[in-house]
Amino acid sequence: MELGPPGGSGPAEPGPRLRGLRGADAAASASSLSRFGAEAGCRAPAVAAVLPAGGSGERMGVPTPKQFCPILERPLISYTLQALERVSWIKDIIVAVTRENMETMKGIIQRYQHKRISLVEAGVTRHRSIFNGLKALAEDQPNCRLSKPEVVIIHDAVRPFVEEDVLLKVVTAAQEHGCSDYDLEFGTECLHLALKYSHIKAKLVEGSPDLWKVTYKRDLYAAESIIKERISQKVCVVMDTKEDEEHVGHCLEEMLKTELNHVKVTSGQDLQQIILEQCYNFVCVNVMTSDFEETQRLLNMLEESNLSILYPVVVISVHFLDYESVPLGQKMEKVMQIREFAKEAKKRNILLSGLLIYFPQEEQKLRESLRQGTTIISALIKERNSGLIGQLLVA
Amino acid sequence: MELGPPGGSGPAEPGPRLRGLRGADAAASASSLSRFGAEAGCRAPAVAAVLPAGGSGERMGVPTPKQFCPILERPLISYTLQALERVSWIKDIIVAVTRENMETMKGIIQRYQHKRISLVEAGVTRHRSIFNGLKALAEDQPNCRLSKPEVVIIHDAVRPFVEEDVLLKVVTAAQEHGCSDYDLEFGTECLHLALKYSHIKAKLVEGSPDLWKVTYKRDLYAAESIIKERISQKVCVVMDTKEDEEHVGHCLEEMLKTELNHVKVTSGQDLQQIILEQCYNFVCVNVMTSDFEETQRLLNMLEESNLSILYPVVVISVHFLDYESVPLGQKMEKVMQIREFAKEAKKRNILLSGLLIYFPQEEQKLRESLRQGTTIISALIKERNSGLIGQLLVA
Repeated sequence: MELGPPGGSGPAEPGPRLRGLRGADAAASASSLSRFGAEAGCRAPAVAAVLPAGGSGERMGVPTPKQFCPILERPLISYTLQALERVSWIKDIIVAVTRENMETMKGIIQRYQHKRISLVEAGVTRHRSIFNGLKALAEDQPNCRLSKPEVVIIHDAVRPFVEEDVLLKVVTAAQEHGCSDYDLEFGTECLHLALKYSHIKAKLVEGSPDLWKVTYKRDLYAAESIIKERISQKVCVVMDTKEDEEHVGHCLEEMLKTELNHVKVTSGQDLQQIILEQCYNFVCVNVMTSDFEETQRLLNMLEESNLSILYPVVVISVHFLDYESVPLGQKMEKVMQIREFAKEAKKRNILLSGLLIYFPQEEQKLRESLRQGTTIISALIKERNSGLIGQLLVA
Repeated sequence: MELGPPGGSGPAEPGPRLRGLRGADAAASASSLSRFGAEAGCRAPAVAAVLPAGGSGERMGVPTPKQFCPILERPLISYTLQALERVSWIKDIIVAVTRENMETMKGIIQRYQHKRISLVEAGVTRHRSIFNGLKALAEDQPNCRLSKPEVVIIHDAVRPFVEEDVLLKVVTAAQEHGCSDYDLEFGTECLHLALKYSHIKAKLVEGSPDLWKVTYKRDLYAAESIIKERISQKVCVVMDTKEDEEHVGHCLEEMLKTELNHVKVTSGQDLQQIILEQCYNFVCVNVMTSDFEETQRLLNMLEESNLSILYPVVVISVHFLDYESVPLGQKMEKVMQIREFAKEAKKRNILLSGLLIYFPQEEQKLRESLRQGTTIISALIKERNSGLIGQLLVA
């Protein structure tokens, strides 16, 4: 059961193919699988995944093996594990790593709180690593804590964007299909090996363009951009609820909705729920008098949640300035406190910056500053650059 | 003579191959070609390039054909043209575009000042487009301003990172080699077509990983990151030359040299030369008293040069603050003038921001603010985000 072309082959294919190898035993039916996917918490069918991750990544042109290369400061393999963990019916995930990377891998599992992971030692080739993974799953292993699966998915550690529907297709194919000449012709050597040595039937499954493999440095760049784009799809606007002061906050929210295309802007009425729904961007409006009250409340809630464990969370603390009542310099000096908050927040992977928006009486001018504010908010969310935390930007 | 797999095939291959088709006429020898490459200005050998650019880019998932998708606000095809123009011995570059994109293409050529370009109308298939390009180069065309080439390179409009040495290899192969079974087996249908219809000999030439093709949205992301990285390799530190005030500027320069790995930091002694050498990043130190004097001088020089036509140029106007003599708010208000300069500079594709560095007497603390300043400079250069222009950042 294998996703995509084997380790030795090239970079992403236009429509990568998945290979499903049928298990020796009868397995739960495909329909029950999708039911298990939908109803989390039910008894999981016997599916496991094996990730060969013993590669050295010499094509990448960097000393770190590609599965350990950081994207937004988190190793690539952690994204792949995250993608598999999300699938409730994959009961066990076996990762094969070299002896020298065993401690690194343990650290990654602990830091990013990965669950259902077991480690085995990688072999000298990708096939040996897979074999070691399968061996760990075999029932006859002494002291084996793992249950013997009916289907095993073999997935490259460097394909972080695998989706549940594709995995389901593979498992379904593994259960339903036999091996055809077509598959042997278009598949790669794994299919031949399966037939030759295991007498196991094989089926080629159509993948999706998302299933590409990180091979070159440029693929890491692309992966980073895709991940940044994905976690920038939702922005939550948080503000206090004092009736009379709300107006400007709502104007900003409306402006964000019209200017940020493809971004869902929600208001933070039920912050707990929004955090649960994995929103990674917060615009926190501190109206006129209250300075950092709202921002601090938000930071506390974020700290209590574990939201920022996997991705850096962007928080923009918005403040308004009426030039006529307070001089710019004085207000700026006050809001510069943001630097101290930001230093603390960074320790918890929260990227905090301040935004001072000029708040003139005239509607037209106000719209202009709000529009500028929106441009800055968009840049901060899009780039997610930790080098700019604690800065006070002015619109 | 063709670079990379034909239009219909998948995304980047690990080591893309180049196909060279031998011209019907005898051509200048390979050695003379490389001599012409090295000694610019000599009589150019008869080499032309044809770029089929009539594709619709449906795989990209965006309405704009991929060759016109913007990278740092400039269309992808302009980067490819730039790569071919750099090669002095390519005399003519023929671009085949659809009738509906003809005006867009003319606009691109004018705006980015491309030279040696002729446009022809694209055909309904890639091969027809190539044919139209070749026809325009044929000697017997009425009113033909183009000279008939001895070798024609056919290059995908969406492979922006082609290098001179690879093009030279193709031309050399076109002159020296015949067609082999090996080539026919590993090449794609273009080789077969060449043999079948033109009785032209073909040769497969080994390419480089840089020669990949922009096919999916993720490839655009990768291309943008690669381009950003390439133009961020050099930073020039500009400062006035008053002996006694220079110290802090030099400290910053030293800090940039140690903190920015892989980045060449030069001092702007001979600005004209540095601009000529295509440095796209400037840190402009305005020491204590002079406010924007240095920055304005630099902006004027950049405006006179045409440096920012092809890439956005980052200029960071650095100012120092001694809290004990000037209050932060007052200084900030003063330096906030940067916003007006930035608005003007943006019109010329120059991204100007301000950086206020705290300048304490104590050496240890000074190093700390300089290090923070370096982090901010690095973020601004790396991201090159026009949403943050005119901002005053504080280290």
